[in-house]
Amino acid sequence: MSLLLNSRDIDFNLYELLDTEALTRQPRYAEHDRAVFDAVIEAARVLAEQEFAPHAAKLDANEPTFDGKRVTLPAELEQTLDAYIAGGFMGIAAEAEHGGMQLPWVVGQAACAWFAAADVSANSYPLITHSAVNLLTEFGNDDQKRRYLEPMVAGRFFGTMCLSEPQAGSSLSDIQLRAEPTTDGHYLIKGTKMWISGGEHELSENIVHLVLAKIPGGPPGVKGISLFVVPKIRVNDDGTLGARNNVQLVSLNHKMGFRGITNTVLNFGEGGECHGWLVGPMHQGLFCMFRMMNEMRIGIGMAACVLGYTAYLHSLKYARERPQGRHPLEKNPASPQVPIIQHADIKRLLLAQKSAAEGAFTLLLHCAWLIDRQRTETDDAERTRIGLLLDILTPIAKSWPSEFCLEGNKHAIQILGGYGYTREFPLERLYRDARLNPIHEGTHGIQGIDLLGRKVTIQDGAAFKVLLEEYRKTLAAAAPVTELAEYHAALAAAVTTIIDTTAALDALRASGDVNRALANATLYLDAFGHVVLAWVWLRQALVAQRALAKATGSDLDFYRGKLNACQYFYRYELPKVAERCALLARFDDTCLATDENWF
Amino acid sequence: MSLLLNSRDIDFNLYELLDTEALTRQPRYAEHDRAVFDAVIEAARVLAEQEFAPHAAKLDANEPTFDGKRVTLPAELEQTLDAYIAGGFMGIAAEAEHGGMQLPWVVGQAACAWFAAADVSANSYPLITHSAVNLLTEFGNDDQKRRYLEPMVAGRFFGTMCLSEPQAGSSLSDIQLRAEPTTDGHYLIKGTKMWISGGEHELSENIVHLVLAKIPGGPPGVKGISLFVVPKIRVNDDGTLGARNNVQLVSLNHKMGFRGITNTVLNFGEGGECHGWLVGPMHQGLFCMFRMMNEMRIGIGMAACVLGYTAYLHSLKYARERPQGRHPLEKNPASPQVPIIQHADIKRLLLAQKSAAEGAFTLLLHCAWLIDRQRTETDDAERTRIGLLLDILTPIAKSWPSEFCLEGNKHAIQILGGYGYTREFPLERLYRDARLNPIHEGTHGIQGIDLLGRKVTIQDGAAFKVLLEEYRKTLAAAAPVTELAEYHAALAAAVTTIIDTTAALDALRASGDVNRALANATLYLDAFGHVVLAWVWLRQALVAQRALAKATGSDLDFYRGKLNACQYFYRYELPKVAERCALLARFDDTCLATDENWF
Repeated sequence: MSLLLNSRDIDFNLYELLDTEALTRQPRYAEHDRAVFDAVIEAARVLAEQEFAPHAAKLDANEPTFDGKRVTLPAELEQTLDAYIAGGFMGIAAEAEHGGMQLPWVVGQAACAWFAAADVSANSYPLITHSAVNLLTEFGNDDQKRRYLEPMVAGRFFGTMCLSEPQAGSSLSDIQLRAEPTTDGHYLIKGTKMWISGGEHELSENIVHLVLAKIPGGPPGVKGISLFVVPKIRVNDDGTLGARNNVQLVSLNHKMGFRGITNTVLNFGEGGECHGWLVGPMHQGLFCMFRMMNEMRIGIGMAACVLGYTAYLHSLKYARERPQGRHPLEKNPASPQVPIIQHADIKRLLLAQKSAAEGAFTLLLHCAWLIDRQRTETDDAERTRIGLLLDILTPIAKSWPSEFCLEGNKHAIQILGGYGYTREFPLERLYRDARLNPIHEGTHGIQGIDLLGRKVTIQDGAAFKVLLEEYRKTLAAAAPVTELAEYHAALAAAVTTIIDTTAALDALRASGDVNRALANATLYLDAFGHVVLAWVWLRQALVAQRALAKATGSDLDFYRGKLNACQYFYRYELPKVAERCALLARFDDTCLATDENWF
Repeated sequence: MSLLLNSRDIDFNLYELLDTEALTRQPRYAEHDRAVFDAVIEAARVLAEQEFAPHAAKLDANEPTFDGKRVTLPAELEQTLDAYIAGGFMGIAAEAEHGGMQLPWVVGQAACAWFAAADVSANSYPLITHSAVNLLTEFGNDDQKRRYLEPMVAGRFFGTMCLSEPQAGSSLSDIQLRAEPTTDGHYLIKGTKMWISGGEHELSENIVHLVLAKIPGGPPGVKGISLFVVPKIRVNDDGTLGARNNVQLVSLNHKMGFRGITNTVLNFGEGGECHGWLVGPMHQGLFCMFRMMNEMRIGIGMAACVLGYTAYLHSLKYARERPQGRHPLEKNPASPQVPIIQHADIKRLLLAQKSAAEGAFTLLLHCAWLIDRQRTETDDAERTRIGLLLDILTPIAKSWPSEFCLEGNKHAIQILGGYGYTREFPLERLYRDARLNPIHEGTHGIQGIDLLGRKVTIQDGAAFKVLLEEYRKTLAAAAPVTELAEYHAALAAAVTTIIDTTAALDALRASGDVNRALANATLYLDAFGHVVLAWVWLRQALVAQRALAKATGSDLDFYRGKLNACQYFYRYELPKVAERCALLARFDDTCLATDENWF
C-alpha cells in the first residue's frame, strides 16, 4: 500500500459515502464518468509517488535562497512542477473554456491530496494558483480572463494571494497598500506585502498576484478594501509578455517547515510604476476574497489532513515492522520481541492518528462535494441551504485538521521514538510542515471568532440550523442500527450539549456582554469541531456497518477498521465535548479578566 | 526582565515555597549560605545570557558533521563550554573531595536551568557529565573515582550514558553489547550502541562512557546487565592519558532539534581491544543505573520545563509589543490597534504556558529539594519516606513537562503567528528542541507503565500513600483559607477520583487481567500528572495568598499572577482529570482489542 494515502479510503469516500458519480448527471460535469475520475486520481497517485515524494526531503533541506537579485531553488522543484503541469493538473477543476478539465471539485481535491501528501510545499505553488484561477474566474472581467486565465491553467503563469502586510496579519482592516486610480484604466499600486507564498521564483514565465489594496478616499477598515490583479510582468493585448511591473522581492522568510515554497516580503511600485487592475467592484475586495475563502480554507484543511494521513501510514508501517519489548504477561526475557503494533499504547497512538486523519478526510471531501453541489444545484432554496452548510463547516474544515492532525503528526514521531526525531524518516518534516496550518489562512483563534461570532448566529442561526438538520438525518439513519446504538446516543447527547452551549453564549452576547461571550471562542471551536467529527464518523460507520454483511477479504478488515476507529473517536475523543462545554456554559472569564501585569 | 527565566520566580520557589536555606544546617551543606546560593544562580544567569543564548541559533543552524574521521562543531560551542567550565559549573553539585562545589542539588538545578533555557543542547554536554559523575560517585570503586572523577568535575573529561542499541531502544532487556572478562581486571567490550548523546567530539580531552553490557553466561534479560566505565582514551595510573580504547564513531544521527549536541552510533571494540571496567556489582548494572534515574529524569523534566518557560517569556514580550486588531466591541476601524495581549484568546495561550511552565518548575525544584533531603536525612524512616515520594513523582516530573510544556511551546509559536514559524525568533527552535523530551530517558508510554505498573503498587502502594499524605497536608493548610476554597474542593475531589481509579485498575490487575489494566497507562499518567500539578499550584497559591497582604509594588502583581495562573489551571486543566478517569474506570479496551489488520 502507498505510504501517502489509502486508495481504498478515497473510493470509500467518493463512491460509498458521497454520491460523486451523480455529479456527472449535471450539465457541468456531463462529459465525465467514474472511469475518468478514477483515472485522474490514479494518475495523480503515480505522479505524486514518482515525482513529488522522492524530492520532498531535498526541497526541505535546501530552502530557497535570495542573493539580492534572484531566487535560487533546487532544480528538482521545477522538474516536479513541470511534470505536474504536463499531467494537466493545473487545470484539474478549471473551466473547459480556459483549457481546464472542469472536473468536480471533490475529484480535484481527492487527486491533489496525493500531491500534498507527497510534498505539501511543492504542491503549494499549484494550490495557490488554483485559488487565483478561481478568483479570476468568478470576479475577473473578460479582458482579465483573456490575459491571465489560459496561461495560468496551462501552467505558464503561477498565481499568488497577497493579503497580509507587516503591520496587518490577522487584521486585514489595517492594510495600507495603496491603489491610486489613473486615467488609463489601471491603478498605481504602492506598498509592502508580507508572508506571500510563491511571491517570487522563476518556475513560471510570469506571476499573477491577486492583491488587496485600498483606493484613497474609500471608507476606512475592511469596507475600503479592493482587489487587484498585479502581474510580475505586464501582459500585452496579444498575450505576449511586456515590461516588468515593479513588484520587487525584498526578502525571503525562513520557515521551520513548508520550505519548498518561497515565502516573501514584496514591494510594489518601489522602483517605478506598478500597475494593477481592479477585480470585481471597487471596495468589494474582501467580499470577493471571502467568496473564495471556503475553497481556500478547505484546501488548507486538506493539506493538514493529508500531512496527518501520510504520517499515520508511515508510522503504521514502522509499527508493523519494528520488534521491541514484550507483552506485560510475558516474563521470559529470552522470548522474541514482538512488533510494537501489538502494544496497546502504540495502537492508541495509531487509532488517534487514524480517527483524526480519516475523519478529517471525510469532512474535507464532503465539503468539496458540497461546493460541487452548490455550483450545480438549480433550486435556489437548496443552493442557499448548501451554501449555509458550507459556511458553518468551513471554520471546522480548516481548524480541526490543523489542530488535531498536527497532534497526529506528533504521535507518529512518538511511535518511531528516536528514529522519528531524525531526518532518516519523513515524520519530523511532516510535523514541521504541519505546524503552519493553525497559522495561515486565518489563525486558529480567528476561526473560533469566525464560528462563534459570526457563523452560528448569522441570519438568526440559519447556518447552524442547516447543520443540525444534517445531524438529525444521520441520527435518524443510525437509530435502527443496533450495532451503532452507543454512537447514536452519544452523538445525540453531544448535539444537545452544543445546542445548549451555543444558546447560552448567544444569550450572553445578546445581553451585551460580547467580550465574555467570545472570550473562550477557541474552546468552542474545538468542541464544535469534535461534534462535527463525531457526525462524520457516524456517517462512515453507517456505511461500513451496512457493507460488512457482504464484505469479504481485505474489505472486511477495512470496514471493521472504520467501525473500530469510530469507536475510538466516540470513547476517547467525544467525551471531551461535555467537559469543554461545561466550562463554556459557566462563562468562565479567567482569561478575559487577567490583568496583563499578572504575567 | 530576562527572556530565559524569571529570577523572582526562582526566589519564590527556593525561599518561599521550599526552605532551601534550612539545608545549610546539614553538615553536607554547612559551608554554604543563601548568599552563596544566590551568587551562584546569578552567575549562571549572566553566563547563560552572555555565552549560551547568543550562540544557540548558530549551533542549531550548524549541526555537527562527521567526515569519517573527525567531528566538526561550531567553534562557539567550545567557547561556551569553556566559559561554563571556567565558572566551575561542571562541579556545581559534585563532592568537594573531587573538586566540586557540593552545593545542594536544588540550587544546582535552579542555576543550571538558566543554561538549559539559553541553549538546551549545549547544556546537554555538562548535564550528561553530571549524571556520569553522580553514577561514578555512587558506585565507582576508589580506583575509578581517582582516575575519572576529578578530571570530569574539572571539565577536562566529559561523560556519556550508553544504554540504547539499534535493536534495543525502550527494551533494555534486549541489549547485546558483550563484556568478556579478562584476567587483567578489565573486560573486553564489543558491540554497538545507538542514540548516544555526546558520544564523540573534541571538546574535552577524554570521554568517559558509562556503558550497559552483558557478561556472557549471566542471566537473560535485565538481570544480566552490568555497568562499565569505558574511556575513549585509557587513563594511566598516574592520571595521564594512554592509548586509544577503540570506541569508534560510526555515524551521527541528524535530528530535528537538540542539534548542538552530537548524537551518535558507537562501535566498541571493532578495530581492536576496547577495555571496560565493571562499576558496581556484576549483573547489577540496571539497578545502578536506575538508582540514578530519578536525577536523570528530573533533569529531562527540567529541560522540558525551561524550554516552555523561555518560550512563554518570549511570546509574552511579543504579545505586549505587537499591535493587532481591536476589542470585539470597538467598531471604529480608524481607532488604533491594541497590543495583542489584550485579546482574551492570547491571554489564554499565555496562561496555558505560564501554568504549565511555572507549575512544572515548582514540581521539579521540589523534587530536586527532595533529593537533597534524602541525601541529608539521618532518620531512616523519613529517608525511606522521601525516597518513596521521589519514586512516585519521578515519572510525572519527567513526563508532564515533556508533554505539556511542549504544548506550551506550540502556543508560543501561535502567539507570534507567522513570525513564530520563522527563524527570526527562537520559538520554532524551542518547539523542535522540546519535541525530543517525550522520547528520551524513557518514552512517555514507558513512564505510564512505570507509574501504573510499578510505582503506584510497589510495597503495597507505599509510595502512593506517601504522596496522598502530602496532598492531605496541603489540603489541610488550604482548608481555612476562604479565598482558596474553590481549589481546595477541586483538589480534594480530584484526589478522590485518582484514588478510586487507581483502586479499580489495581483490582482489575489483581484479577489477572494485566493487559487490560495497563492498556490505558498513558492516559492514567497524564491524569495523575494533572492532579500532581494541581497540588503544586495549590501550594503556590497558599504562599501567594499569604504573602499578598503585605506585598507591594511588583510583588503584588507577582502574587496575583500566581493566584490567577492557579485559577486557570483549576478551571481549564484540572476538569480533564474526571473525564479521563471515567474512561479509565470503564476499563476501556478499544485500543487493546484492536486487530492489527484493522489499520
